[in-house]
Amino acid sequence: MSGVLESYARGSWFTPSDEGTPLADANTGETVARISKNAPDIAGMIDYARSVGGPAVRALTFHERAVLLKEVAKHLMGYKDEFYALSHRTGATSRDTMVDVDGGFGTLFGFSGKGRRELPNSTVILDGPPEPLSKGGTFVGQHVYTSRPGVALQINAFNFPVWGMLEKLAPAFLAGLPSIVKPADQTAYLTVAVVRRIIESGLLPEGSLQVLVGTHEGLLDHLGPQDIVGFTGSAATGALLREHPNVVRGGVQLNVEADSLNFSMLGPDVRVEDPEFDLYVKQVVAEMTVKAGQKCTAIRRVLVPSGMADAVIEALTDRLSKVRVGAADHPDSRMGALVSLEQREAVREAIGALGHSAEIVFGDPDRVEVIGADDGSGAFMSPILLRAEPGAREPHEIEAFGPVSTVITYDTVAEAVELAALGRGGLVGSLVTHDEDVAREVVLGTAPWHGRVLVLDRDDAKESTGHGSPLPALVHGGPGRAGGGEELGGVRGVKHHMQRTALQGSPDMITAITGQWTPGSRRLADEVHPFRKDLSRLRIGDTIESAERAVTRADIDHFAEFTGDTFYAHTDEEAAAANPLFGGIVAHGYLVVSLAAGLFVDPAPGPVLANFGVDHLRFLTPVKEDAVIKVTLTAKQITPRTNADYGEVRWDAVVTDQGGEVVATYDVLTLVAKGEE
Amino acid sequence: MSGVLESYARGSWFTPSDEGTPLADANTGETVARISKNAPDIAGMIDYARSVGGPAVRALTFHERAVLLKEVAKHLMGYKDEFYALSHRTGATSRDTMVDVDGGFGTLFGFSGKGRRELPNSTVILDGPPEPLSKGGTFVGQHVYTSRPGVALQINAFNFPVWGMLEKLAPAFLAGLPSIVKPADQTAYLTVAVVRRIIESGLLPEGSLQVLVGTHEGLLDHLGPQDIVGFTGSAATGALLREHPNVVRGGVQLNVEADSLNFSMLGPDVRVEDPEFDLYVKQVVAEMTVKAGQKCTAIRRVLVPSGMADAVIEALTDRLSKVRVGAADHPDSRMGALVSLEQREAVREAIGALGHSAEIVFGDPDRVEVIGADDGSGAFMSPILLRAEPGAREPHEIEAFGPVSTVITYDTVAEAVELAALGRGGLVGSLVTHDEDVAREVVLGTAPWHGRVLVLDRDDAKESTGHGSPLPALVHGGPGRAGGGEELGGVRGVKHHMQRTALQGSPDMITAITGQWTPGSRRLADEVHPFRKDLSRLRIGDTIESAERAVTRADIDHFAEFTGDTFYAHTDEEAAAANPLFGGIVAHGYLVVSLAAGLFVDPAPGPVLANFGVDHLRFLTPVKEDAVIKVTLTAKQITPRTNADYGEVRWDAVVTDQGGEVVATYDVLTLVAKGEE
Repeated sequence: MSGVLESYARGSWFTPSDEGTPLADANTGETVARISKNAPDIAGMIDYARSVGGPAVRALTFHERAVLLKEVAKHLMGYKDEFYALSHRTGATSRDTMVDVDGGFGTLFGFSGKGRRELPNSTVILDGPPEPLSKGGTFVGQHVYTSRPGVALQINAFNFPVWGMLEKLAPAFLAGLPSIVKPADQTAYLTVAVVRRIIESGLLPEGSLQVLVGTHEGLLDHLGPQDIVGFTGSAATGALLREHPNVVRGGVQLNVEADSLNFSMLGPDVRVEDPEFDLYVKQVVAEMTVKAGQKCTAIRRVLVPSGMADAVIEALTDRLSKVRVGAADHPDSRMGALVSLEQREAVREAIGALGHSAEIVFGDPDRVEVIGADDGSGAFMSPILLRAEPGAREPHEIEAFGPVSTVITYDTVAEAVELAALGRGGLVGSLVTHDEDVAREVVLGTAPWHGRVLVLDRDDAKESTGHGSPLPALVHGGPGRAGGGEELGGVRGVKHHMQRTALQGSPDMITAITGQWTPGSRRLADEVHPFRKDLSRLRIGDTIESAERAVTRADIDHFAEFTGDTFYAHTDEEAAAANPLFGGIVAHGYLVVSLAAGLFVDPAPGPVLANFGVDHLRFLTPVKEDAVIKVTLTAKQITPRTNADYGEVRWDAVVTDQGGEVVATYDVLTLVAKGEE
Repeated sequence: MSGVLESYARGSWFTPSDEGTPLADANTGETVARISKNAPDIAGMIDYARSVGGPAVRALTFHERAVLLKEVAKHLMGYKDEFYALSHRTGATSRDTMVDVDGGFGTLFGFSGKGRRELPNSTVILDGPPEPLSKGGTFVGQHVYTSRPGVALQINAFNFPVWGMLEKLAPAFLAGLPSIVKPADQTAYLTVAVVRRIIESGLLPEGSLQVLVGTHEGLLDHLGPQDIVGFTGSAATGALLREHPNVVRGGVQLNVEADSLNFSMLGPDVRVEDPEFDLYVKQVVAEMTVKAGQKCTAIRRVLVPSGMADAVIEALTDRLSKVRVGAADHPDSRMGALVSLEQREAVREAIGALGHSAEIVFGDPDRVEVIGADDGSGAFMSPILLRAEPGAREPHEIEAFGPVSTVITYDTVAEAVELAALGRGGLVGSLVTHDEDVAREVVLGTAPWHGRVLVLDRDDAKESTGHGSPLPALVHGGPGRAGGGEELGGVRGVKHHMQRTALQGSPDMITAITGQWTPGSRRLADEVHPFRKDLSRLRIGDTIESAERAVTRADIDHFAEFTGDTFYAHTDEEAAAANPLFGGIVAHGYLVVSLAAGLFVDPAPGPVLANFGVDHLRFLTPVKEDAVIKVTLTAKQITPRTNADYGEVRWDAVVTDQGGEVVATYDVLTLVAKGEE
């Protein structure tokens, strides 16, 4: 495994023509692999992704793509030992590796689940309801998301060689984009190992995943307006990418996730004896030491009430002194090495700069006791806690990307919120408090500056996933210094990879284009009741227009008595007459929809298995006694389930009265058998 | 009115210290106003917006802001004559002015309506449902949008001095941001006139609207990560803004709406005798001549089947020859002047460049017959139609920002889609066809390249708002060359001005922060049934836990008979037993929710006026005979209506059975009286 790393380009593994330079084991300095700047032709890889990978991904529905992500995750789980062994060589302990490797797989599972539950089983996402644009209803709008015929170039950071790749790959793949992964040099061997297992599996369509190792030359030179660059790394590199001509003038979409001076605040309500005090201290120490603090979400700024600073520092110091630093694969190591000696040097320099307005209260940047390894060869370092002077600027501006945090004091909650904002935009902030008023003020004050804000207290501590963990379901990214980008967030992250377009046309055209029935478009009626059709025969637009039924005063009286719903508007003439909306006895809304079901249901066993729900029910016109109602039910959306012999059918329901007034509108949700394929 | 234009800065009108340079009437060359580069201190204006305007706007709820937008629109309507007179001087005819002035007011009304109907009556927007993050439910996620403590700097184009300002101001104001409007020099006198009327009205909070006239110096130099720049103009200027250090490194959010070589395609199905042929020709001519083609959404590329090119050109030529060009206020003018002699020169140059691969088939760039004005002094120009050579590049690259379009031919639909994409990203494309298959292929093929795509045919023509009209409810913007930005789109445009943040915490904390009840957070129970509380007394979390009710087989039989819903799962033992989901007779879902209503309703007249709807109803566990159900109803969201003495209350409803299984979940929507304030 100490050979030169290969790229996967245009359907085969590319071996560089030279031996490259060594990548050192973070613990021992031994060579793990070699990396060369000799790389495959980037323009060719992009062309291949666009012409081979993209069309293959987009030929699949969202659900089919989601299923593949799950299968990839299951396949990769068979190689965990291999990935863990390589991960240790990056300096990551098993706890650290769990975040990267298992966290990466969890992201695939998470997106797979979101994709199947929250996206349609088709290739176009509808965004919001149709927009009525005309009085007569012949001209309507509908926003849709469509897949771009481009490529996603993913430039990853060194610290999460597995999760970092998969958290960008999963939403891009779901969105129909082929990916070209560019791992950071230092830990590329782990990323390449994972890609190799994915490619071997043959699960993903060829061309939908390529990996480019070793070079930064001309990465963006061949990209255009349908391509997306996802970048995680330093703000300085992010700025260089922003200045690239293809970003400035070429329409390349760039998503940056960069530096972040994340804060964690101890609420002014917390006393030393409260459980929140302990939770706070534990969380800070965890975030300082996991991945040796090499996390873009680590806590850099420890905001505490002035009166609590000494107590917090004492508790942190006490806990930090018990953290054993050592070889990543040593069972007693609580904190591993930094990724490289160069990285350790950069962190030491940052600590030096922080020292202008802060003093070190725990740890020595140049000395640490190490277990299981020779501290001369590995990139080990002690956790470092600093305490800032009042008014210090450096802690809000300098990110030491290692096990380094600075205690900063505040006097009022308003001041604390201002201090948090001095970071000029971050990925995550957290607050430890059990006071809801404090939580409201701090969270609403800091939210505009952060992509994620976590409140930790005795109630959620046991199940909290922690300050530092981005989750597939929640957005990850932040404004300002943090790059201004947004990743993950479930289908939000998928939509970021797609183009939103407002369609305008007649309802029939919108239906034809989107494959979902749009109100106002034609209804298809034939002799067969649509409930007698399985999914193989049901068509969008299939309609039943029901018979009529009178709603008598006796029905209303009876329904009130039978259900116990004796609300005065249904039972008390005088009081109902005084109701400003009804002006007299009205039928129960539930009576109307119950009778409507009686009108549209086809009773005998057939493909319709169940009514599993109702959406968007609105009662628009009161139904008075002796009104005559009927219902029109139209197949609106058909969603076959990938792993079942039935699917979901959403029906548009409109109940009207004898005067043609719309009494109620809603969606009826049914499960319907697939039938013959 | 030929004095020097003033800026409105920091609460007063700023008069430049010099006379400035003249702005010429587009029709006559006479001086309309003067404009000076001597401008108020920008840093001071930004500071004022942040410290005075922003807090004042954010003290209002979304509904209160929405009401103010409507009042501003109504106020401005009283000054239409004044605005029309000034608009004519820009070269805009009455038809053109309607798009700008009335269109601008319509945008205010549109956003006002959207704000009240689609946003909560509070200051935080919830984005999506809570995300379950833990098995025990003590740790949940919730995405929110919060207002930024920043400023919106709006740099507008010359062509829509009223609409262009208002379409940016409205969503920014709704989002809680103060605006600084920077009009384009040439037509700034009209923008300033409108701002003056708004300021005079006193309707908007002081500091929420300022206008900066005449200078571009240092516009972005004082902006930071909470500020947004909305720019409409040339791609070249857009690129300069993208390169500004505060955008590259300072975290300023930039939204660009720039050049666009919009296409309109005639479907291959359309014959000369079809109504679509005529619709196509009319639409092209309208888009060439409205605003003398000075619209970012105008049709630049006329894509027609090869075999139809001669017929289309003949019909266009015929129609264009009837367009009378003249003074904007002349009743017979069908097309006005370009905005300035300089603009006309730029258009002539662009026509020259287009001439490399296209020939002029209608019009002479240097000669036009003019009515109501002296053609020597005004910036008049003939409509110009070109026909491109096969394979021509220039029509896909050069935007002549005037009454200029180029006919380009295609042979297959696939080729037409490729030609459309050669524009490298546009604001809008349109297709004239009555063939649904053509529509599907063209729309899905061109949607990734466009912010809006319109399909015109005999069905929607009468009500179509036209290729060139952005609408408040639909997104406006486009990828690539069009700038990659997005404006309007109803609440989408509001959210673009806000920060999305993922909150994490216990359900109680999320409830306290968002002001909306989160499942899993505490329920407040007291002796008073919550239906007896008006909005002044009802609290988020107020709960009724109902009594129990058995659901007997007799109930099910009776309900089937009464409603006519005799679906076999409720009536036929044997068939129901064979149903894969039920395995026996089950109660109707509608029976369950009807009985649940009977359990939670408080019958006597009181503050609850009506149940107007149900959302997200899901039947989760079948209710078999002799099940015993109860319902828990909790006040989830309270939305007082701004202009009524009642509001909406959304209740969380959970129906459980005797085993504690959740049978059904849904939201009940009621109207409730406000009571005493």
